Amino acid sequence: MATDNTPTVGFIGLGAMGMGMARSLLRAGFDVRGYDVNPAAVEAFRTDGGKAAESAADAARQAGVLIVMVLNAEQADDALFGSGNAAAALQAAGPSPLVILCSTVSPAYAQRTAQRLAGMGIAYLDAPVSGGVTRAAEGALSVMASGSPQAFDEAAPVLDALSANVYRLGDAPGQGSAMKLVNQVLAGIHTAAAAEAIAFGAKLGIDPKQAYDVICSSAGASWMFEDRVPHILAGDYTPRSAIEIWIKDLGIILDAGKENRFPLPLAATAHQLFMMAAAAGYGRLDDSAVVKVFEKIADFHVVSPENNPTDQP
Amino acid sequence: MATDNTPTVGFIGLGAMGMGMARSLLRAGFDVRGYDVNPAAVEAFRTDGGKAAESAADAARQAGVLIVMVLNAEQADDALFGSGNAAAALQAAGPSPLVILCSTVSPAYAQRTAQRLAGMGIAYLDAPVSGGVTRAAEGALSVMASGSPQAFDEAAPVLDALSANVYRLGDAPGQGSAMKLVNQVLAGIHTAAAAEAIAFGAKLGIDPKQAYDVICSSAGASWMFEDRVPHILAGDYTPRSAIEIWIKDLGIILDAGKENRFPLPLAATAHQLFMMAAAAGYGRLDDSAVVKVFEKIADFHVVSPENNPTDQP
Repeated sequence: MATDNTPTVGFIGLGAMGMGMARSLLRAGFDVRGYDVNPAAVEAFRTDGGKAAESAADAARQAGVLIVMVLNAEQADDALFGSGNAAAALQAAGPSPLVILCSTVSPAYAQRTAQRLAGMGIAYLDAPVSGGVTRAAEGALSVMASGSPQAFDEAAPVLDALSANVYRLGDAPGQGSAMKLVNQVLAGIHTAAAAEAIAFGAKLGIDPKQAYDVICSSAGASWMFEDRVPHILAGDYTPRSAIEIWIKDLGIILDAGKENRFPLPLAATAHQLFMMAAAAGYGRLDDSAVVKVFEKIADFHVVSPENNPTDQP
Repeated sequence: MATDNTPTVGFIGLGAMGMGMARSLLRAGFDVRGYDVNPAAVEAFRTDGGKAAESAADAARQAGVLIVMVLNAEQADDALFGSGNAAAALQAAGPSPLVILCSTVSPAYAQRTAQRLAGMGIAYLDAPVSGGVTRAAEGALSVMASGSPQAFDEAAPVLDALSANVYRLGDAPGQGSAMKLVNQVLAGIHTAAAAEAIAFGAKLGIDPKQAYDVICSSAGASWMFEDRVPHILAGDYTPRSAIEIWIKDLGIILDAGKENRFPLPLAATAHQLFMMAAAAGYGRLDDSAVVKVFEKIADFHVVSPENNPTDQP
């Protein structure tokens, strides 16, 4: 819980995930200065009772803790050290500054960023999150975190407001990000596999709705299958998490594999399936739309179109 | 339940799965004549109270229902129509003969077999099972079945003794087998993905035991991950289900894909990973030993060997 001694929280990145997280902090009583490159997001956050920052540096200016929830490492780097210049502003703000980076980045980037911030006297928590937009809004994310015990102590009230579970993965920055990548290897493969299997079944004449029921109580079950196949059955590809997110996350995973000379044949194949989906123009649809690759290439429908009024790619 | 009117059940294929199923039938009060190409299995079944048949035809001779639970379509074909000659023996045994084929076969094979048996006046239930050796022994399998309502009616007491769930997938033989293949697409990919992800995490410095706990309550979870990764953590590759089973099952799946001109990129990649495991000499180990492909190729251990006294490939 926030107390009178709770420091102001700076928040950079008010996208679908970040906005829910920043609002969860407001709900818990924190004073939050939010910034996003999109002025409309900042304005919406102000309407919710947040403070509107004019820049990344402005978000950090009065903060003890700065949360960064941007799309990728490039944006994080620009916000902290580049045009955003938030790290220097945080350094000037007061004692014991802390950056919590929640974006999905490579373990190597997390390590480099921790070192660079340490050189400025700023502590770092490597803290990618899992759970999607709904759990972000509820303050019920899972956090896969690593960092010094002091960083964890300082972050505790903030993490408490954001999450239902905090997995402590050690003292070394990078371990939180590595665990997130392991989760994304599986979640990415399982999402593509769900599409491949349900499309294959439909091609063999299996009713997808019946296949869904059978698989959910059989050895083929996965969390992603249970969560995403209903989107396919409803023909509803409104993006909860988009195809493009997998191109990014599996891309980070394959880069980490390359850096470590570690082969990832299934993750690479899943990545290519999401690339095919994006090549076909489905990149901004829900990630379950990877099934459309099979539909388009084999020129058939998994669920008959008359049952799918919303299926408009 | 078996009654005084319950017909004798013939059972061909007393392997790890078949023996558990045949014993479940004995427990339910059925009179079961069992046959296997391995005489020791037949003798073991006799010791359990079963009747020992001297051939496939002998198992069928007095049966109303003949269950076939052999390794693959080739063995089923040989038992029914080839050297085993069980179909002709069943035809001669009495009125309303029924074959229940529980092996994993292609939908096309199930359809052909149903037609061939229909020509002999024998009904057919396409009834592959799921659940593994433990559930087979408990009479708690899942059955993915298709066939005529009469075939289902006649099979009901037998299926009741074998299974906890019977999924009825329609009147047409082949639909049960198609559903089983959909399940195996997912279960096979998930098993290989579990190995790829846990090995990748270990390479990045993540403790596999901690990764297991985090993944089981995260979006990366799958039934196979939860079931198989403990074998990796214990270094215990005693085969519950062997690498070779996936080479067979994913092989059937890829053949069905080829016949139907349907691409299965993830299933094909998983198949290659199991082929690598077999090429490295792990074919008869538990399927979780696919992780050894990554260990061998990258020359490292996912779990340190001193914690794995039983890890002897």
